[in-house]
Amino acid sequence: MKLPFPELSADEAAAMIQNGQTIGFSGFTPAGAAKAVPKAIAAKAEAEHKEGRPFKVGVVTGASTGDSCDGALARANAVLWRTPYQSNKFLREQINSGQTKFFDMHLSQLPQYVRYGFLGHFNWAVVEACKVTADGEITLSTSVGASPTFCRVADKIIIELNEHHPEALHGCHDIFEQAEIPYRREIPIYTVKDRPGSPVVKVDPSKIVGIVRTNQADECSPFTEFGEMIGKIGENVAEFIAGECKIGRIPKEFLPIQSGVGNIANALLGALGTHPDIPAFTMYSEVLQDSVVELIKSGKITFASGTSLTLSNGPMSELYANLDFFREHFVLRPQAISNNPEVIRRLGCITINTAIEADISGNINSTHIMGKNLMNGIGGSSDFTRSAFISIFACPSTAKDGKISAIVPLCSHIDHTEHSVQIIVTEQGVADLRGKDPHERSRIVIENCAHPDYRDDLMRFCNETKSGHTPGTLKDAFIFHRQFLETGSMRNIQWS
Amino acid sequence: MKLPFPELSADEAAAMIQNGQTIGFSGFTPAGAAKAVPKAIAAKAEAEHKEGRPFKVGVVTGASTGDSCDGALARANAVLWRTPYQSNKFLREQINSGQTKFFDMHLSQLPQYVRYGFLGHFNWAVVEACKVTADGEITLSTSVGASPTFCRVADKIIIELNEHHPEALHGCHDIFEQAEIPYRREIPIYTVKDRPGSPVVKVDPSKIVGIVRTNQADECSPFTEFGEMIGKIGENVAEFIAGECKIGRIPKEFLPIQSGVGNIANALLGALGTHPDIPAFTMYSEVLQDSVVELIKSGKITFASGTSLTLSNGPMSELYANLDFFREHFVLRPQAISNNPEVIRRLGCITINTAIEADISGNINSTHIMGKNLMNGIGGSSDFTRSAFISIFACPSTAKDGKISAIVPLCSHIDHTEHSVQIIVTEQGVADLRGKDPHERSRIVIENCAHPDYRDDLMRFCNETKSGHTPGTLKDAFIFHRQFLETGSMRNIQWS
Repeated sequence: MKLPFPELSADEAAAMIQNGQTIGFSGFTPAGAAKAVPKAIAAKAEAEHKEGRPFKVGVVTGASTGDSCDGALARANAVLWRTPYQSNKFLREQINSGQTKFFDMHLSQLPQYVRYGFLGHFNWAVVEACKVTADGEITLSTSVGASPTFCRVADKIIIELNEHHPEALHGCHDIFEQAEIPYRREIPIYTVKDRPGSPVVKVDPSKIVGIVRTNQADECSPFTEFGEMIGKIGENVAEFIAGECKIGRIPKEFLPIQSGVGNIANALLGALGTHPDIPAFTMYSEVLQDSVVELIKSGKITFASGTSLTLSNGPMSELYANLDFFREHFVLRPQAISNNPEVIRRLGCITINTAIEADISGNINSTHIMGKNLMNGIGGSSDFTRSAFISIFACPSTAKDGKISAIVPLCSHIDHTEHSVQIIVTEQGVADLRGKDPHERSRIVIENCAHPDYRDDLMRFCNETKSGHTPGTLKDAFIFHRQFLETGSMRNIQWS
Repeated sequence: MKLPFPELSADEAAAMIQNGQTIGFSGFTPAGAAKAVPKAIAAKAEAEHKEGRPFKVGVVTGASTGDSCDGALARANAVLWRTPYQSNKFLREQINSGQTKFFDMHLSQLPQYVRYGFLGHFNWAVVEACKVTADGEITLSTSVGASPTFCRVADKIIIELNEHHPEALHGCHDIFEQAEIPYRREIPIYTVKDRPGSPVVKVDPSKIVGIVRTNQADECSPFTEFGEMIGKIGENVAEFIAGECKIGRIPKEFLPIQSGVGNIANALLGALGTHPDIPAFTMYSEVLQDSVVELIKSGKITFASGTSLTLSNGPMSELYANLDFFREHFVLRPQAISNNPEVIRRLGCITINTAIEADISGNINSTHIMGKNLMNGIGGSSDFTRSAFISIFACPSTAKDGKISAIVPLCSHIDHTEHSVQIIVTEQGVADLRGKDPHERSRIVIENCAHPDYRDDLMRFCNETKSGHTPGTLKDAFIFHRQFLETGSMRNIQWS
């Protein structure tokens, strides 16, 4: 069908975008990310820079994107500022070298920030879709993220109509936006399957200034095989949850699972799916990764709610080939809903996220290496953790061939406080922090989760002073990190 | 009316309580706290200890209590473990010297922890009431807190029937409890006035093992006069909020206010009430303090929702003398509802809490002095902050006659992360952290909020290294605190 919108090349679209403007791009992980237009903007930036003219734009997305967006724009030095999350190595370098300003936000709050003007004016929304109608009904592709909000607030909308994604994705999205404050009502989601919204994003068609036709898969990497250590962490998480079921703290109906993003999270979810004492379950999560497809097929996951379908090419092809089956088993929602504390708290989610490091008090670092360099960002981990029924963080007990202990006296950057973290899991074991005071916590974390090579030094820190509500001293709080920065290893701490 | 429950003296009630048992006491602040029974339990503990027998009990409350509960039990060394919050100097000493185990919890989560067995078995609920009926309908007194949950889960209930509180308080409470997970529905509160619950806590009357009659006011201290500095902080907060209204980020209908606990919070709320550009407002808060009574009288607060009525004797007498007027203007809810993220997020609350210290990244310490000794606890500050529409923290820029800077390189204990804190206010000014990266944040916090005496040293910390996403180094992160611990002052940092 001929649409009443101008058909543009990506370069023609990019030509309309001016230095200093703010753009809301679709994309939550590489899933559903804009691809052609940001690449063309990057090319425009390079051309402008060659001519000696400044060209940078504010880049806001749902979460991370693919290389065609964050990678291309970073390499072109075209990012004026960036929020709320990223995972691209080129962009990360720019951020950590101070060339790009990045602020790290709770993903559930981004749409509210955007809608109420906390981030200034939005000139453009650039969103990928699999279908659009003349009257402005947009069927998004493999993620929803913050696209409905970007379309709502931006002056103008450019649609990347990506025919790689089948139009049959129509019906896989549930676009629910809350009313304006102070007239908000409840989010009427009582089970993970509920669909209070619309299958499409409805926009004023006069805001759509062009359609850019593309045909490109999402730039999601396949997961690598995980080794024995990750397998053991997965077993420990599954055993813990099975134990909670057994003693009745998790009801017999079980509870929805949220699982974080990345290789370890994918493996942990797989472990839940194979544990004999964990029943078939549902997910109320953010990112649906490869293992979800497998577990839906096997019947272990009965339904999965998320904001993105972040699949590598194999599982994605399989899902598209069997869409009639899969569409009964998943839904994609705006991140303001998938990550909303109202629904997470109500449903009683069991949340499983990964940590960069954990400390003996139960604080978690999710974002910064040695307190300094940004890794990816906090993402939705706190949205889920803070309102969880049971909140779990998992990581290997060591990194860098054992030279880094992931269990430290004090996290070098704190993203989740001891108040919100209930369970810490490593390949060594499980620390259940509920109802434990700081001294008990430190002992349990060290004995159950730290690698044996580091236990003595961690205990020595705790025993430096017996006074006070918390163990240890400020003087030596970062002694592990400081030794690593000086010598390249946290092993055998040189106590002064 | 003769009730079908045994009338007991406090000592008779205490005699039933055994060493090692767990008790849920009413009380959220001294308001509505059990008074006679805990005092009698303390006396029993002292007698038992004299006989060489162990006697300690697990003490769980809504939040803090009065001296008759936490003070008496602590002095008798009768507290085996304690959660979720306290503010008593004797108990604090016991906690910080390691004699009593205390764990610090988000107050909204306590009832869920208790209900689902995360804190073990509850033997007793000891709750203050102003009225009870033969069929087990309890009208609580000046707080609700976690009493409905304690009554639900405990084996046996003892009621302190306190005739100091008028029975006419009936109708001032809204007791709403959610269904069991996974069958929870929405909390149907859409404006601060909504009352989805019951005026009473309904219990199985066979669980009520006795009534202890008392006649005693709540042990709430009057507020002290605040000086010029607190006045200036209040002005800054009010000016900031008025500014947000003016540019339309706060809608013309305004938004509900949450205000923290204590002298400063009381003064800040007073300042909002007198600012000419702030309209009459509502509160969706936790603790309703003296200034609320004044502002309801003047019409500046049209309605206040909380979980406790924490009033000193003057304002309390006034409220009781005019209960017909005041009952139209406030309601008390369970803390699982007053502090629930679902409602706080939905209503779009503006939250104002006080900090012990703030750091240049925007992290907040609400709980521990020099990272070590517990002050009171996190209370509900994170329940509100984390789901706020706009989250504000306020404190004087210095403490201890200027020898402590409340603005530090890194908080010595982090209770609220940079991700959740939007606005920091001191008497010096306002730092609006929204949309700012860590380097911008540090500059704004130092220039706008730090005391001039400390700005150079704070800037020097930031400038130690230019690399990385965050300013400063781990090496000197606690240099302010360490100098204070060594010399008694943070002034003129001796850089090594």
